[in-house]
Amino acid sequence: MAWDTEKTKSLLLDAATAEFSDFGLAGARVDRIATTAGVNKERIYQYFGKKDELFGIVLARQLAAVMDEVSITGEGIDAVVGYAGRVFDYQVAHPELARLTFWEGLERDEPTALETRVAGGDGKVRRLREALPALSEDDARELLLSILTLCDGWQVLRTMDRVYTGTAERSSKRNAARRRAVLAMIEAHTRELVG
Amino acid sequence: MAWDTEKTKSLLLDAATAEFSDFGLAGARVDRIATTAGVNKERIYQYFGKKDELFGIVLARQLAAVMDEVSITGEGIDAVVGYAGRVFDYQVAHPELARLTFWEGLERDEPTALETRVAGGDGKVRRLREALPALSEDDARELLLSILTLCDGWQVLRTMDRVYTGTAERSSKRNAARRRAVLAMIEAHTRELVG
Repeated sequence: MAWDTEKTKSLLLDAATAEFSDFGLAGARVDRIATTAGVNKERIYQYFGKKDELFGIVLARQLAAVMDEVSITGEGIDAVVGYAGRVFDYQVAHPELARLTFWEGLERDEPTALETRVAGGDGKVRRLREALPALSEDDARELLLSILTLCDGWQVLRTMDRVYTGTAERSSKRNAARRRAVLAMIEAHTRELVG
Repeated sequence: MAWDTEKTKSLLLDAATAEFSDFGLAGARVDRIATTAGVNKERIYQYFGKKDELFGIVLARQLAAVMDEVSITGEGIDAVVGYAGRVFDYQVAHPELARLTFWEGLERDEPTALETRVAGGDGKVRRLREALPALSEDDARELLLSILTLCDGWQVLRTMDRVYTGTAERSSKRNAARRRAVLAMIEAHTRELVG
């Protein structure tokens, strides 16, 4: 039944997302994914291929979700600051996205789903320059990379957070302070870039 | 002989640094470290304890090196921008530092060598506020964390770099552009913070 296949795939992808987020590509165990999903291991190979292919599918799915959900709306510096704030909030609500991104950075030489991501990135750059026409193409690219690196990095570096601020708590108070700091930084930088 | 012990320890720590940087804590193999160093595996346990203790020693040693080498000198916003630039250059020259930092963030709940790092962090915060007395304690801590997160994050996220800028090359041209972007961001933000 088609419905069963889709349901099984979805269970497997959810289990794989949690497993890769916790243990990375090399550390993830296909056995454990199958057990968590309550599905026979052979199905994983049948539907998704080998472990590194499954990792690629899991990350691409997470990236498509953030791409869909967090868009650049409005005009001017507020559009950039608003976007950065929503990226930050999305990362806090979905910590597995930042973890998967850094596992990829540490464990893979080539990015997953490169073509789709480049197309998505180009779209964001175009939208950013529509919102802020004074932004050069290069500056828009660096700005996007800075926003994502800061929002992703803070999610993963809880240990460094502990060292510098004395707490690794993901409390809403802490997150609110962190969010303000990111947004102030992005705003100051963007204002500088567009003169 | 004392000299031999020190030399053996140093060979082991260098091999362990490369191994943990490449494979992380869970992925590192004590066997491989021993083979690379040309030293019997038992020595590792004798000198440094278990694998996770060795990871802690390796990371603490790298952090002590950057703490020693990269200091905040001078006064005013230039002191912060100069410091951020030297952190960036250090990370480019020693990519294993950022990798170890992110492996820790992904794989450990508690930071390595917490007391020493907090003391070092407090010293940096103090020095930063001497250079820029208008900076509040909280802003100084967030600013330091932002500088380190950006410089560390860019080293590790070569895959994201590839997506957004079309190249993962660590060419000096690319690094120079990246460095300018970091410094402009830190400068704009710092100016904002001190009013």
